[in-house]
Amino acid sequence: MTIQDDYSKITAASKRIAPYVRRTTVLVSLKLNEALGAQVWLKCEHLQHTGAFKFRGACNALLQLSEEQRARGVYTVSSGNHGAALAAAGQQLGVKVRVGVAANASKFKRDNMARYGAELITIDAGMAAREAFVAAQKPTGREFIPPYNHAHIWQGQGTAAHELMLEQPDLDCLVAPLGGGGLLSGTATAAKANGVPKVYGVEPELAADGQASFRTGVLQPAMPPMSVCDGLLTSVGDKTFAVIRQRVDDILVVTDSEALAAQKLVFELTEQWIEPSSATVIAAIQRYPELFAGQRIGVIISGGNLAR
Amino acid sequence: MTIQDDYSKITAASKRIAPYVRRTTVLVSLKLNEALGAQVWLKCEHLQHTGAFKFRGACNALLQLSEEQRARGVYTVSSGNHGAALAAAGQQLGVKVRVGVAANASKFKRDNMARYGAELITIDAGMAAREAFVAAQKPTGREFIPPYNHAHIWQGQGTAAHELMLEQPDLDCLVAPLGGGGLLSGTATAAKANGVPKVYGVEPELAADGQASFRTGVLQPAMPPMSVCDGLLTSVGDKTFAVIRQRVDDILVVTDSEALAAQKLVFELTEQWIEPSSATVIAAIQRYPELFAGQRIGVIISGGNLAR
Repeated sequence: MTIQDDYSKITAASKRIAPYVRRTTVLVSLKLNEALGAQVWLKCEHLQHTGAFKFRGACNALLQLSEEQRARGVYTVSSGNHGAALAAAGQQLGVKVRVGVAANASKFKRDNMARYGAELITIDAGMAAREAFVAAQKPTGREFIPPYNHAHIWQGQGTAAHELMLEQPDLDCLVAPLGGGGLLSGTATAAKANGVPKVYGVEPELAADGQASFRTGVLQPAMPPMSVCDGLLTSVGDKTFAVIRQRVDDILVVTDSEALAAQKLVFELTEQWIEPSSATVIAAIQRYPELFAGQRIGVIISGGNLAR
Repeated sequence: MTIQDDYSKITAASKRIAPYVRRTTVLVSLKLNEALGAQVWLKCEHLQHTGAFKFRGACNALLQLSEEQRARGVYTVSSGNHGAALAAAGQQLGVKVRVGVAANASKFKRDNMARYGAELITIDAGMAAREAFVAAQKPTGREFIPPYNHAHIWQGQGTAAHELMLEQPDLDCLVAPLGGGGLLSGTATAAKANGVPKVYGVEPELAADGQASFRTGVLQPAMPPMSVCDGLLTSVGDKTFAVIRQRVDDILVVTDSEALAAQKLVFELTEQWIEPSSATVIAAIQRYPELFAGQRIGVIISGGNLAR
């Protein structure tokens, strides 16, 4: 697919999900700009349903199911934002949602999904148990809605950057956190289709499989999940990696303590609490002045994984 | 003027200021709804330029000046959100802004205005000094842009409720804090023009001149400025009072400690810091269940006066 073909899917997704998503604010903080030495436009997806852009992809995926498929319900595996987002989208659209949740997931995250009517099924932690759960659900006839490695998901996530650029077209770069690659794929596609010169992904040093994959050109396995950036622990998917390789300029890393300091900085200067995964991007703007000083930067922020 | 005539001014203002204001999110928090026992839609004007709906009125007023008037510049008296809002609007529109600031205004509030290029002139505290400053500026040929007692100001503030209802038309009531009456006049006009059954104003018990005025039908003088709700200390203006008498159903009061507890509650459940003046509305929803339990309530929140 060309960038323009893919971008037309993103603009179509934007229209499709418009009745269901919140139109989030694009925030500018002069104090934050001063602190970062750059001009930053924050697309406030922490104010999106369930606190993250993930609602966009989930909604886009559900809306492209047939009526029959919707009637049978869907399932996924998630311990965080995707599960809550899918549950909320399912609740709005009348689609039953079943979520495989790792046994070690926090009560906060479980409650977040249950609040939106999801049926939670506890599974063991780790990839093998996830895969077993997915295989076991197949015979139920329910559709699997993966967290990121699916065109409808990443195209949905790309609508946040699309909306950001409708309000602020003149950007030097867009920067997005990299976990499974859904947000970064969508963001990069929307950005490059609009002529934005640069797109960067950011991940924690403790989960830097994305940078390794990007720089070697070969998809690397996930690292042991040790970072506080709990939204970014998964490995990049093959479908999202294909997009990222083509449309992203580089993958940058920051430390956990840099991310936590950036989270604190954003709160002190803007009163907005963003999750550590999202703060990686602000930390990268601070850490790589050779890339970002004086630049006009678009950022999609999220907050759903915050333990409230 | 009829409600519909006034409302047409608000919708015109909404179009006029659209290129300059931020489209703020309408936020729903299931947890907050649960705590309040009602359904609340929060129009996030704390994410507006300078952190408050005040930017809307200031922008609307400046855009209705002639080119000549704009070239001569404007002035106002304010120690808070209006001064910062007018400065920011003036900066966007290329209009010089002079602000008379009371000598006891905090450094934070001064910095907030200076950041947007306002020329600050220190004046003594109190109404007499304000009036003397206003009179002294007359010969300069600059236009006076008052904080609330002017049709262009309150019609501009009404655009927030107008936008809120575009996204959420089906409301039982709208509730707004009452200080000088700009927000409440605009909100009530937009609400009643859209068939919303009830509109309430809320003010601190320590600054309850609005309730006294409303219930006696005669404009009462301001009370000594003692409340922590620093955006609500001024008395209601005669122009805004005329609108409020006609279109508001009642003025409610809350204590300072109720407002501060509501501010804390909103932060704990939504991560949004709102200013005490704005939290009065949430406190009123808690204090008057006979009016609000189970209702669908629209609220415009603000945060600009927070000392950051």
